[in-house]
Formats: sequence, structure tokens, C-alpha cells
Amino acid sequence: MSVLVVGTTALDSIKTPAKANPRLLGGSASHAAVAASFFAPVKLVGCVGEDFPAKYISLYRRHGIDLAGLQLLPGKTFHWSGEYEVNMNHRRTLATELGVIETFQPKLPEAYLDAQFVLLANIAPALQLSVLGQLRKPRFVVADSMDLWINIALADLVRLLKRVDGFVLNDGEAQLLTKEDNLFLALKKIHQLGPEYVIIKKGSHGSVLSGPKGIFLCPAYPLSCVEDPTGAGDSFVGGLMGYLSAARGPVGKNIRRAMVYGSVTASFCCEGFGLNGTTRTKRAEIEKRVKQLEKLTRF
Amino acid sequence: MSVLVVGTTALDSIKTPAKANPRLLGGSASHAAVAASFFAPVKLVGCVGEDFPAKYISLYRRHGIDLAGLQLLPGKTFHWSGEYEVNMNHRRTLATELGVIETFQPKLPEAYLDAQFVLLANIAPALQLSVLGQLRKPRFVVADSMDLWINIALADLVRLLKRVDGFVLNDGEAQLLTKEDNLFLALKKIHQLGPEYVIIKKGSHGSVLSGPKGIFLCPAYPLSCVEDPTGAGDSFVGGLMGYLSAARGPVGKNIRRAMVYGSVTASFCCEGFGLNGTTRTKRAEIEKRVKQLEKLTRF
Repeated sequence: MSVLVVGTTALDSIKTPAKANPRLLGGSASHAAVAASFFAPVKLVGCVGEDFPAKYISLYRRHGIDLAGLQLLPGKTFHWSGEYEVNMNHRRTLATELGVIETFQPKLPEAYLDAQFVLLANIAPALQLSVLGQLRKPRFVVADSMDLWINIALADLVRLLKRVDGFVLNDGEAQLLTKEDNLFLALKKIHQLGPEYVIIKKGSHGSVLSGPKGIFLCPAYPLSCVEDPTGAGDSFVGGLMGYLSAARGPVGKNIRRAMVYGSVTASFCCEGFGLNGTTRTKRAEIEKRVKQLEKLTRF
Repeated sequence: MSVLVVGTTALDSIKTPAKANPRLLGGSASHAAVAASFFAPVKLVGCVGEDFPAKYISLYRRHGIDLAGLQLLPGKTFHWSGEYEVNMNHRRTLATELGVIETFQPKLPEAYLDAQFVLLANIAPALQLSVLGQLRKPRFVVADSMDLWINIALADLVRLLKRVDGFVLNDGEAQLLTKEDNLFLALKKIHQLGPEYVIIKKGSHGSVLSGPKGIFLCPAYPLSCVEDPTGAGDSFVGGLMGYLSAARGPVGKNIRRAMVYGSVTASFCCEGFGLNGTTRTKRAEIEKRVKQLEKLTRF
């Protein structure tokens, strides 16, 4: 079954202590869609401006991503520019130019309306709600978000959370949203906002799922070299939803392995700038790291 | 088989945002010895002053800890006083009164000299070396340390690392020692200093082992309430060494489970002030959490 992914499609200019790379393909939807494409067909919902390089359209196509929902709008593509500190754990936004995303109104093609697995990747919660409102009967909807929306669009986010099956956020965002330092108490508070499944991402420390079958502690794949962690969280949730939509049986049975596949896909993302690490990966390499993670965590 | 534990025996005055508790039993050797005592007989090497409360001697005895190596010296017991911040992740030392520990010269009783499993818990590396030098033919020696010794006694610590089988430290200390931010590169650098087994502790994020059989990612038991994390790292390595010394077969076969047992023992430590959380625990409760951790990490 296919996954519908809505989110930002952006050009990212990323500086790390080692390198600087201008105007790479980025955005939550790009990272999530490419990650999901290893496991299932993907339908993309987003918008780009007239400056969007044709080579990135080709990149999407090489990953078999359905672009019927990608709007080409007059103006410039969303551009984000940021810098990582020495230890890659903190990043600083240098510039955000919204461009066409400022007036973006998602309008789903007819062929998208019966989507079953839906990933509302990080974008304004009002836009996530707009997409959700157009869908006929989605089976499993997961939303991602970021600190910005908790700070400036909390009411929309809270409305969204009442309507999704799963919510993914990082530990800092969980603390910001719940005012709770303890991760397991934060998980309980987020469930009270609506989602049956809540996943808190902890970067290189892995992630934690809380769902109807309790807690799952998901490991991160050990990396000796992180070239650029931008998009790792999006790749995680993209891989997770791709795996889930392709797996047989109920979500509750598959979601742990889906997280591990998401975690491994994110590990490849970290090993290159922008999408370079992810796009040079093959499904067989993902399988290999999943098997390694089994061995690395067995006791 | 028994474990020999050397380290500090202290009185700890601990403030957290919720409570303050003066002069509780603490110190690396106290936490490690009690943790190890759930799994194996323990021989303690340390020193206390004339102010050391008799009730704490009784506490050691209730845990079957052999006190032939505990010296009662004229003067005051080592006293540490510290305060935790709101989120329990950062602590501040308010006062350190060395007392009798300043002139402590460990002298092992004859019955200790053939100890096989030896835990050099956190104390000055010169004292750890002194104990190690008195042992006839130890089978498996693990050292713990702290940032203080990396800063003020690095030469001693480096000498020590050449002579131990295992070294345990936390992520901040690993970074301080190796000047390396990436944990897996830090592990490699620490192996080059001598130890065959290196374990980096990451608090609530678990711990990582690097040994001859590769990497093991050890989970932390999920806690909704951390009352006082003081001594958790000592409890971890104490539980680990206790389990290892009681297990049959080679260290390489048992060390993963030993870490999980150490991790669970440390979780009980965090649930009470000082040693209160650990001492009210029973072996059966440890087994229960180990089983739970298996379920929480399976995929």
C-alpha cells in the first residue's frame, strides 16, 4: 500500500564544521518521501517555486515518488539555511525564506483521496489539518512537528493531535509541549492530547514508543561519522511509515520493526549532506543494518 | 565467587528540587558494594572516620558485606554535599570534605589477596593502583573513575588503564579523556589506552559496551520518577561485577547480561535518596525488571 506524505519541499544550505553545501534538496517531505520509498510507493504533497532545479524532480522520480500532488507555484522555493556546532548536537538557523510555502494551499489530486497511510511531516499544523480534512477514510495517520509550531501555532497543533493516530516529536519538543522533564511522564501527557501512539526521538540515543502495547525502546544505529544530521528525524518517520504501509497485519504488530527500519534509514541520512546519504543507499544495506541492530541489542 | 570492591565510603548530603537529606550513606564503594551484594559475596576496601554511624555498619552487614578491609581511622568520614537541578541531569558540588580519605592507605587483609573479580570503584587512581598492586592474580579487574581524576591525576589514570581489563566512564568523561565527541570513536581511543572492555554510561539513555565481541547497546530501565541519581553509576558497575562474578563461563559470554543487571540495579538506586532505593530492593524485583527490559527492547 502507498504512503501519502505532506510536508515541506525545500532547498537547504547547510554548514557543518567540516563543509558548507548550498541549496541541497531538503525539507521534511523530501527526506520522509525518499526514506519511505525504500519500502512502499509514495505520493508527495508539497510545493516548489520556479527556481526548483529539474535535477531534484528527477531525484524524486528515480525513487518512484508520485508527484501529482507537488504544486509548481510562481515565486521561490522555501529556503532554509543553518549551521551545526562542532559536536553536531546543536544547530542554528541562519535564514528562513518561506517563498511559495507562505501561500501554499494543499489541494489533493483525486487519486490521493483514498490514501490509507498518511504522514503529515513537519509543516504548519493548519496545512496538516487541511490535508487531513480532504482525505476520505485514512487508516493510520502520523504527524510530525517542530518547536516553532508549539511556540506559534499551539491551538492548531492541539486540534491536529485530536485527529491523528500517531505523533512523533523529539525530546526537546516533548518537554516544550508538556512542561515535563521526565520523558515517560511527557509521553503520558501527550497521549492525553489524543494520539494512541506517541514516539519521542532522542537523536543518537534512539527513540521511545508509547502505544497500546506499552513502551518500546528503539535503538539508534551506532555511527562513527555524522556528516549532516539534517532530515534524520524526517527520514526516521518516513522509513517508519513506508515500512508500516508495506507490512501485512495490524499496526500494533508491526510498529516496533517499523521504528527500527526508520532508525536505520535515518542513520544513512546522517552519513551524507542533505539527501546524499539516503539516496546512495539500497534496501539491502538497510536490511543489513537492521540485522546488525538485532545483534547489537540482544542480551 | 566474591567481588572485591575498593572505593570511597562517604556521608552524602544531597539536595534535590524536592528534598534535602543530610549525611546519608554514600560513596562509590558503598553504592557498588550494596549493588553487587544482590548477586555475590562482597569484600569491601575503604575507610571511615570516628563519626561514621553504627547504623551504616549494620547496613553493610545486612547485605553480607565483608568489612575486614574497612579501616576505621581517627578523624572524620569523607563528606560530599551536592545539589541537583530541576531536571536531575546536572549536579553541583556544594562542598567536599576529604576527612580520613586524604591519608587513606589501603592495606588488603590476607583473605582478600586472591580476589578474582575486582572492582576499582571511583577513588583516586593512585589508590586504585595500590590495591591492584597487592592482589596476587586477579581474573577480571574493572575500574571506574570521574572527571576530577582525568583533570588532576591523568598520569596515574593512564598507568591504571594499562593494567585493567575493563574501564567504565560516562559520556562526558569519555569526551574529556579523548577530546572526541563521537562516542564510538571515543571508545576506540580508550581501547588504545589499554582496556579490552570499555563501557560508556549515558544515564537515562543507557550504556554502550565495546569489547572483543563488538558493541552492545544496553538499555536503561524507564523510570517515571527519579528521586536521587547519586550513586547510580556506581550501582551499575557494582551490579555488573556482582553478576559477572556469580555467572558461570567466560566474561565475554556473560557481560551483556551483566550490564543489563547493572542497569536495573541502578534504576532502583535512582528511586530513593542515597542507598534507600537500592536497599529496599529484593533480587526478585531485579529479575522482574530484567524480564521487562527484554520485552521493552524486543523487535
